[in-house]
Amino acid sequence: MTDATADADLNAKHNAKMAKIQTARAKMMAERQIEKGLLIVNTGTGKGKTTAALGMVCRAIGHGQKVAVIQFVKGALKTGEKVVFDAFPDQVEFKPMGEGFTWDTQDRARDIAVAREAWDAVKARIADPEIDMVVADELNIVLRYEYLPVDEVVAAIVGRPEGKHVIVTGRNAPQALIDAADLVTDMTLVKHPFRSGVKAQAGIEF
Amino acid sequence: MTDATADADLNAKHNAKMAKIQTARAKMMAERQIEKGLLIVNTGTGKGKTTAALGMVCRAIGHGQKVAVIQFVKGALKTGEKVVFDAFPDQVEFKPMGEGFTWDTQDRARDIAVAREAWDAVKARIADPEIDMVVADELNIVLRYEYLPVDEVVAAIVGRPEGKHVIVTGRNAPQALIDAADLVTDMTLVKHPFRSGVKAQAGIEF
Repeated sequence: MTDATADADLNAKHNAKMAKIQTARAKMMAERQIEKGLLIVNTGTGKGKTTAALGMVCRAIGHGQKVAVIQFVKGALKTGEKVVFDAFPDQVEFKPMGEGFTWDTQDRARDIAVAREAWDAVKARIADPEIDMVVADELNIVLRYEYLPVDEVVAAIVGRPEGKHVIVTGRNAPQALIDAADLVTDMTLVKHPFRSGVKAQAGIEF
Repeated sequence: MTDATADADLNAKHNAKMAKIQTARAKMMAERQIEKGLLIVNTGTGKGKTTAALGMVCRAIGHGQKVAVIQFVKGALKTGEKVVFDAFPDQVEFKPMGEGFTWDTQDRARDIAVAREAWDAVKARIADPEIDMVVADELNIVLRYEYLPVDEVVAAIVGRPEGKHVIVTGRNAPQALIDAADLVTDMTLVKHPFRSGVKAQAGIEF
């Protein structure tokens, strides 16, 4: 074969393969007719749990939806996204409820009270028919430390109004939450710059 | 022990543990002094690769940084984030370069030309001293189909100006890119609603 015919052959094979994928995808898409409010869990030790939730908030904003973001563990560093939320005051409510990381407060009784307050805020947003999406950022951390009973949290989320999306982030998601979820992603750490001595930087970690 | 003393004991143990974690974290943070432009790769079969990049764009916006987002594979559905980008026209440049998914075009020659055009756009943004962060969305897909040579792409990213962050998304990141990266996360699929017949929904998939 000349180069030109080899290339034409490659193109033809590729195009046939793509046509096949296209047909399979169209079939798959046609089979998906259910529309429902999802429980989404972003867990794992890698990066991207909160940032992926933020990305979904961006998409929801773009579709005119209303979103509430409740932060259970206030990272002093997580500040960048606030500027974006503030640009859409009618669509996004942002509530940082935690008062610093738990290893900084060293006061379990206060941590539990703050967790309860944040959870009450989440429940109120879940019940609010005006709100389309509720992000419970780092709720998994609070569950891990048993500041809130897992059963109570899962039951309230499972019993949410139809059509409401709830996104829960944080490592160590409890199994009961994973079982109840529609979409679960484990952000798996492959490589992290902290391990090479790189410090937290604007735009990346905060 | 009475309930009250048991509780006091639990609190004391917890607080001591948190103090220990706090000390370890402070030491770790002090050791991290390097500030550098990162190559970040979001790969894997799960959700969150592009949305996590969007979340980082939000943070960068909040810190007054300039960002370019180049989309190699235009998902007809990915439209929500544009509204957010458009709210910060001086900070975000958004360029959807692909002309539909490859399985829709079925034209390998055209796909290669479009990939080359998008890559040229990425290279120009990497070279531009005004831009702090460049997102090459779904570049991995294009590399997977060999529409661009991996060596050329990796060399150009590795040779980027100091301080420039580059984020590459898409499943099947090539090993050479992972080797060159500072931060790699594999978004691992645990559960996906498509498998239960749930269709793509506004705010979640687009």
